[in-house]
Amino acid sequence: MERKINIAIIGIGYWGPNLIRNFSLLGDCRVKYACDLNAARLEALARQYPGIITTTHLQDLLADSELDAVAIATPVFSHFNLARQALDAGKHVLMEKPMAATVRECEELRLLAARRNLLLMVDHTFLYTGAVRKIRSLVRAGEIGEPYYFDSERINLGLIQPDINVLWDLAPHDISIMNYIFEGLRPVSVFAIGTMHVSHKVYEMAHLTVRFDGGVVGHIHASWLSPIKIRKVLIGGSKKMILYDDIDPSEKVKVYDRGVVVNFAQETPMTPVYRSGDAYIPQLDSEEALLREARHFIHCIRGEEQPLVDASAGLAVVRILEAADSSMNSGRVIELS
Amino acid sequence: MERKINIAIIGIGYWGPNLIRNFSLLGDCRVKYACDLNAARLEALARQYPGIITTTHLQDLLADSELDAVAIATPVFSHFNLARQALDAGKHVLMEKPMAATVRECEELRLLAARRNLLLMVDHTFLYTGAVRKIRSLVRAGEIGEPYYFDSERINLGLIQPDINVLWDLAPHDISIMNYIFEGLRPVSVFAIGTMHVSHKVYEMAHLTVRFDGGVVGHIHASWLSPIKIRKVLIGGSKKMILYDDIDPSEKVKVYDRGVVVNFAQETPMTPVYRSGDAYIPQLDSEEALLREARHFIHCIRGEEQPLVDASAGLAVVRILEAADSSMNSGRVIELS
Amino acid sequence: MERKINIAIIGIGYWGPNLIRNFSLLGDCRVKYACDLNAARLEALARQYPGIITTTHLQDLLADSELDAVAIATPVFSHFNLARQALDAGKHVLMEKPMAATVRECEELRLLAARRNLLLMVDHTFLYTGAVRKIRSLVRAGEIGEPYYFDSERINLGLIQPDINVLWDLAPHDISIMNYIFEGLRPVSVFAIGTMHVSHKVYEMAHLTVRFDGGVVGHIHASWLSPIKIRKVLIGGSKKMILYDDIDPSEKVKVYDRGVVVNFAQETPMTPVYRSGDAYIPQLDSEEALLREARHFIHCIRGEEQPLVDASAGLAVVRILEAADSSMNSGRVIELS
Amino acid sequence: MERKINIAIIGIGYWGPNLIRNFSLLGDCRVKYACDLNAARLEALARQYPGIITTTHLQDLLADSELDAVAIATPVFSHFNLARQALDAGKHVLMEKPMAATVRECEELRLLAARRNLLLMVDHTFLYTGAVRKIRSLVRAGEIGEPYYFDSERINLGLIQPDINVLWDLAPHDISIMNYIFEGLRPVSVFAIGTMHVSHKVYEMAHLTVRFDGGVVGHIHASWLSPIKIRKVLIGGSKKMILYDDIDPSEKVKVYDRGVVVNFAQETPMTPVYRSGDAYIPQLDSEEALLREARHFIHCIRGEEQPLVDASAGLAVVRILEAADSSMNSGRVIELS
Repeated sequence: MERKINIAIIGIGYWGPNLIRNFSLLGDCRVKYACDLNAARLEALARQYPGIITTTHLQDLLADSELDAVAIATPVFSHFNLARQALDAGKHVLMEKPMAATVRECEELRLLAARRNLLLMVDHTFLYTGAVRKIRSLVRAGEIGEPYYFDSERINLGLIQPDINVLWDLAPHDISIMNYIFEGLRPVSVFAIGTMHVSHKVYEMAHLTVRFDGGVVGHIHASWLSPIKIRKVLIGGSKKMILYDDIDPSEKVKVYDRGVVVNFAQETPMTPVYRSGDAYIPQLDSEEALLREARHFIHCIRGEEQPLVDASAGLAVVRILEAADSSMNSGRVIELS
Repeated sequence: MERKINIAIIGIGYWGPNLIRNFSLLGDCRVKYACDLNAARLEALARQYPGIITTTHLQDLLADSELDAVAIATPVFSHFNLARQALDAGKHVLMEKPMAATVRECEELRLLAARRNLLLMVDHTFLYTGAVRKIRSLVRAGEIGEPYYFDSERINLGLIQPDINVLWDLAPHDISIMNYIFEGLRPVSVFAIGTMHVSHKVYEMAHLTVRFDGGVVGHIHASWLSPIKIRKVLIGGSKKMILYDDIDPSEKVKVYDRGVVVNFAQETPMTPVYRSGDAYIPQLDSEEALLREARHFIHCIRGEEQPLVDASAGLAVVRILEAADSSMNSGRVIELS
Repeated sequence: MERKINIAIIGIGYWGPNLIRNFSLLGDCRVKYACDLNAARLEALARQYPGIITTTHLQDLLADSELDAVAIATPVFSHFNLARQALDAGKHVLMEKPMAATVRECEELRLLAARRNLLLMVDHTFLYTGAVRKIRSLVRAGEIGEPYYFDSERINLGLIQPDINVLWDLAPHDISIMNYIFEGLRPVSVFAIGTMHVSHKVYEMAHLTVRFDGGVVGHIHASWLSPIKIRKVLIGGSKKMILYDDIDPSEKVKVYDRGVVVNFAQETPMTPVYRSGDAYIPQLDSEEALLREARHFIHCIRGEEQPLVDASAGLAVVRILEAADSSMNSGRVIELS
Repeated sequence: MERKINIAIIGIGYWGPNLIRNFSLLGDCRVKYACDLNAARLEALARQYPGIITTTHLQDLLADSELDAVAIATPVFSHFNLARQALDAGKHVLMEKPMAATVRECEELRLLAARRNLLLMVDHTFLYTGAVRKIRSLVRAGEIGEPYYFDSERINLGLIQPDINVLWDLAPHDISIMNYIFEGLRPVSVFAIGTMHVSHKVYEMAHLTVRFDGGVVGHIHASWLSPIKIRKVLIGGSKKMILYDDIDPSEKVKVYDRGVVVNFAQETPMTPVYRSGDAYIPQLDSEEALLREARHFIHCIRGEEQPLVDASAGLAVVRILEAADSSMNSGRVIELS
């Protein structure tokens, strides 16, 4: 039997504890270290997980030759430095989304990982949910026909962050899902409009539009200023349309056999005319997405699987976010080269 | 007792019969004529309303000196000509939305009506609903505080029209509502993006963004290509937020006493923090909007009320639609002078 | 070509005008009379339908040898007398639900119609909706397996009626649907419990339970005292389960491929275990139910179709209502002989 | 500072781990033991909570004079014996719901606890939720006026249990809530009807009706055979009505200012007439109910609070469950003496 993979979790704020809990559930992996600058957090963690070594010193774990990998769950601005040090020390890396603060940082990390022959994966957890996996497989199988659009609403009353705007906070989910199910379509331009009503420092609400090759349009509405919580994606195609409502506890995905009939014969249409067949609600795999992802990361380290979200995929998300910032700041449409 | 106002309905396709039904319910008004180019429609109407004179000749009714007013419910491209003839003949005019096909046409009509001292009203029916009236009164009373945004989704599987795009078909509702509740705010720029997947002639799905003075942003998502029907508006302000869901049969308007707390102290927020009080669902006036509007039109003719949607208000809607077309065609942001 | 069937509508309160509107839409039928005791109502109707003869005298129309049929849409207490006179005069009869005020009255009418060889149909409109027709066809085709239960909620804030209790007002819909989709199952006993909080004269809220042969249980919750409107039926079987939500504008019927796994091995079950496959939302016929029913009535008169709801079916509903009254008044379970 | 209260958790199947997690969060309490017959479960627990002593021998912990209290989270049939032994050993007891398998067992335990002057509390967790606390306070403050009814649906696709029927599994929640908000009303009779379609051993679906003094009726629909999950309670009164939808993530409680107008003047009502004012959605305390309850239990042990659900309250629930069984088995209404 192979030895267990040793992993360290860096950053134990909101997301880190979820990583620890899920990696701990895997049989062939051991969470050896938890690292954070906040000693109080480390202390609380140690009470719950007496078997994990806690430290405020990154070098403690990077120097450990038995450590195979790190998972980085810190604020975005620190991603680049932490990942670079970990790769330099020969560790595989799983990075929290978004991958880094700029396209340039992402590119450097991708290059470094490639040179060192290390795994560099980005944690876009939604891609491991039963819902997104089902939608991807329907779209790839041609079930919806020609893709027309991707339209997402991810809004709620959220804490305004000091360092990143609402798109960097919420839209990585939608961009990664959109890229994943439309894999192969090339984004060509980005327009975004944002507002800062409360903080006057970061955009708190934004509409992001991505135009893909072939006329497909993706639109993402992200907001920290909505009185209600909505997590809803509509995906349209020439044959079918999909509704993905992540709030619905039991019917997250609905597939509609619907299409529009063009009627140019009559001048004043009396009533809408369209093709409308049955809809169905597929049963979804209900395994926790992060558990599936943690297992996948370990399998990738062992060379048994290829990463679902590699450095290029992580970079593709940041490229759109960076263009969105340019667009919001300039008021202009940004072409992606 | 005053004599009854005589009115003619021009165009009895989809909307015309609704106008006839509602004007017929008023005691101090008589629907004297129904006019359409389609003789079969006129025949069917005559069976239902034996008291109405039907004709395919506009001049028949314009020449009638006892006719006070016309309501024009024909396709948009014909609005200008019909309205001009009616005004020239000295008739008051109620025009179906949108007012006309261009800003220039709207301006000419406005001028003509003013010169002739005739009433020129545009039928933006939604402004007469209990829901919009309640929202307007809340916003005007300062209940939501400083306005932040207006965000509307008006999507469904709809018949693709031969002559107008989806914004001209659906967005007049939202633009008129937005202008009405934010009365006094000046729109400064427009950006829109649309797609033509099916017809290759008209935009079938579009996102329209209007930036107002003072940073308020309005966004309207209109689509004929959605598998589900959504009619939802969110209105945010510094003190409260409003959800207007026109599909909900009994709870169309909800007012949330919610706001966001900015927290710049901690670097990695653990959990969202916000102010969240009770919400309430106001009881709405349930009178049919079009009946209220028909009565208002008659009262305006009699000089007893001032028109809610005069030529300038109708023109303001067309100005934004025209800018949206420019933006969709050029891919650029359009400044409103 | 056959001559048109002449029909009279008796009672033009709430439902009568709907009958008039739909029978008027049929090509091979003429609404010749409208009869009511209230002259003002007749006058208003005459303005809208100048071609219909209005009268307060039943004999006017019963004496007309060209009249083929009557539709009776008056309060329940008057059904028996009106139907008897119409049958005596040789007219076919369509009766508003419930058929009559007692089982005995229903039996007499059934006998009379049979003797005179006249059609006697009861207007249980819901059986003609696309939703109920689809459910019936699924159940009859064995799609749900062995039927287990029928569970209906029909509650809202309703006007308390002076002469009938809430079960007689609302439950005929559910009882007729239940009997229709479970055709062949024999009801064996009835228990009902009701409350009179407001009127102290009629039950305003009731729970009705019907036990069928073979252990199937039907339950109907009817109420005029609910703050929200619910129209929801669950139908369970050994293979599939159906949700029928009549409020949902577009997804009224859902069919769930779900069942329960019995697990008697372990003593303390940790988590629920069940079989859970896809669900689907069948597309429904959207023709107005009453129009379909009106056409069916005319076809039955012409001998081209067999009545969907004949006197026996109408009587079966009243038998359960009568037993429910006995149960509510006595506090006991009532066996149906 | 007072010493910590030592508590043991007996039974670590489904609910026990929740008790452990919440009691562990309290500062003035220590979970000293976890006891279960299943050694594997104990082992798994020990890995997560190294500080807790695990044992399969009840006597190990009952003999510990430093142990203050036990929480019993085992199957119902074992409640009586375990609680009796714990009380005999001088320990305070928190029992999982329902309190015990018969009224007689409950009475014995109540007597025993009283004699030994020990705390005997029953874990009806729902009474500690923000939703139920808010509803109770509204009802007690007279906000809904005279209470009319309590109507609950608690249905889903659930595992059929080998030893208890669906009412004993699900209805304790509703009965305890009903008793709590209608405190002071005396239940006078019970009728229940159940079906066994799958197991042929235990009722899998049931309708339970409780008639209270003064005409208030409580109805509970409990089912393991529903394709969808519903957790919905309607509470009606003469002035207001409450909807409590426990599935709704953010708007669990709505208070409707609605009532019914009796109209006995007109014989054939044309349209429903009712009083209908605003509704509101109160903001609820969101603390985890079990944490609040655990804290309350510790405070009761220290004599600082009076138990919310004492032995008498626990017994009142079992009394109704026992009567429901009698009713289902006999087909008769059961009077409560």
